[in-house]
Amino acid sequence: MNIKEDLIKAHQRIQPYVHHTPVITSQTLNKMAGTELFFKCENFQKMGAFKMRGATHAILQLASVQQQKGVVTHSSGNFAQALALAAQNLGIKAYIVMPKDAPEVKKNAVKDYGGIITECEPTLTARKTTAQQIQEEKGATFIHPFNDFNVILGNASAGKELLEKYPELDIIVAPVGGGGLISGTALSAMAFGNNCKVIGAEPFNVDDAYRSLESGSIEQNTTIDTIADGLKTSLGDITFNIINNHVEKIIRVTEKEIIEAMQLIWERMKIIIEPSSAVALAAILKSKTDFAHKKVGIILSGGNVDLLNLPF
Amino acid sequence: MNIKEDLIKAHQRIQPYVHHTPVITSQTLNKMAGTELFFKCENFQKMGAFKMRGATHAILQLASVQQQKGVVTHSSGNFAQALALAAQNLGIKAYIVMPKDAPEVKKNAVKDYGGIITECEPTLTARKTTAQQIQEEKGATFIHPFNDFNVILGNASAGKELLEKYPELDIIVAPVGGGGLISGTALSAMAFGNNCKVIGAEPFNVDDAYRSLESGSIEQNTTIDTIADGLKTSLGDITFNIINNHVEKIIRVTEKEIIEAMQLIWERMKIIIEPSSAVALAAILKSKTDFAHKKVGIILSGGNVDLLNLPF
Repeated sequence: MNIKEDLIKAHQRIQPYVHHTPVITSQTLNKMAGTELFFKCENFQKMGAFKMRGATHAILQLASVQQQKGVVTHSSGNFAQALALAAQNLGIKAYIVMPKDAPEVKKNAVKDYGGIITECEPTLTARKTTAQQIQEEKGATFIHPFNDFNVILGNASAGKELLEKYPELDIIVAPVGGGGLISGTALSAMAFGNNCKVIGAEPFNVDDAYRSLESGSIEQNTTIDTIADGLKTSLGDITFNIINNHVEKIIRVTEKEIIEAMQLIWERMKIIIEPSSAVALAAILKSKTDFAHKKVGIILSGGNVDLLNLPF
Repeated sequence: MNIKEDLIKAHQRIQPYVHHTPVITSQTLNKMAGTELFFKCENFQKMGAFKMRGATHAILQLASVQQQKGVVTHSSGNFAQALALAAQNLGIKAYIVMPKDAPEVKKNAVKDYGGIITECEPTLTARKTTAQQIQEEKGATFIHPFNDFNVILGNASAGKELLEKYPELDIIVAPVGGGGLISGTALSAMAFGNNCKVIGAEPFNVDDAYRSLESGSIEQNTTIDTIADGLKTSLGDITFNIINNHVEKIIRVTEKEIIEAMQLIWERMKIIIEPSSAVALAAILKSKTDFAHKKVGIILSGGNVDLLNLPF
């Protein structure tokens, strides 16, 4: 298997369906960080997050007989919307299992993208059982939000685009939730970087990935008390393996540091990012010696926030 | 006098000191507006607003003996910051007269850009007297925030850049406060557009420009009760003349329409704009027949908002 070729093909496949997002810079933030930062703006991606890349690629890699029966996932976050929109773009059905207590705004977003919602009890077991029922009844294919190699290859295209524009990057920083973004980023850094390292950023309150790298096996979160709502999930076996082998380290940050970094990006760069995206800048500002005088890429993972409920 | 040549030279002069800002589009907003929209992002301009263009140009056009003695203006808004930063970039002094009840955050922004603040009573008379004192004592040159032909020529470069990228635009919409932005935009539309009209957008609550075009002379605002804090000012004689001759019409919008348009841009485009900038989109959404099936440019004038005090 040639990873580089896989990454190139994945990117080619999804290109008609996703935005080639811009990379922006900020002299003010460079000064504050003591380094040179390059922000890859997946907040400007379709449906507002990088997950559009992985969802699209996973569907495109299905056989047409599978596509005809639709896809199913369980998610209350960006992946639900991403799979719904990716499926709509390709003219197939997306069944989305959501906990019945998910915010109306999230359910409506999925509906707007043509997703068919099935509500379930707000437990992981109920989600899985409900998704399995849909697989059996409809013949739909289950697409995991991150622990799926085709999803990871799709996500990797963000890092690939960043390195094509700035091949001299020394480090790329990405937030870590289930690990789907950073796994893809690590693969692209290996394939397209010039000795480019990848560093993860994670909230202290959901530091399962940090602990997983320490212990050498997948750790779970005991609390999910973080504003970075995209990062509550624990790793899967596929993402853990890639991260364990190819991610340099993971830097943890406090909730206060996340909120401050988010406000900095909003105020100084005039762009809207979600709290999960701010975790990467928070890590850089916290651990400046790791990045001093380097060229550092940051994947701004998404921009879907509830404007009526901001942390500042 | 050849306006086109003046505009080209002004743009050349300021280019080293300002950003060439991006133009972005949104399929969702196109669908909602029933037209094709091209957003010129002056919210990404240095110090966060188009005023950086005019301030820089006005200073550059002074003789070096004038520059050595510095510049002075009275403003509590974006022009105060713009003149301070433009002066700092050119190594000269900027004296900024601000009402003593101006928000600390605005004073601090001016100080951060090296501006020398003199506080005065919060009346127009006090502002003018204080500025005049500084002119006499320091020999500094007064730069008016908008009613100055060199400021207008500098501001015009935003519309020029927009038309260079999209020469086929049928209409450009800009907000109207003192008229410095829309005057420049109208000059650029004449010089670089292909029969491109310019339409103004103004809050009902400060509709002095609308009334001035109706009556044929400069009208004042009796209230300044609008969220679009950059648009409270009345026109000057120079801006009134340009607008009266070269602006197609002015569309007025309510405070509710401004806030809704602002929220739409934040949510759908993931960029931060100030309320004054939202007035242009609000006008398009309100008066769709004026814009149906046209190619419409919008100048997003700035992105300086107080994140701790949002209208939604």
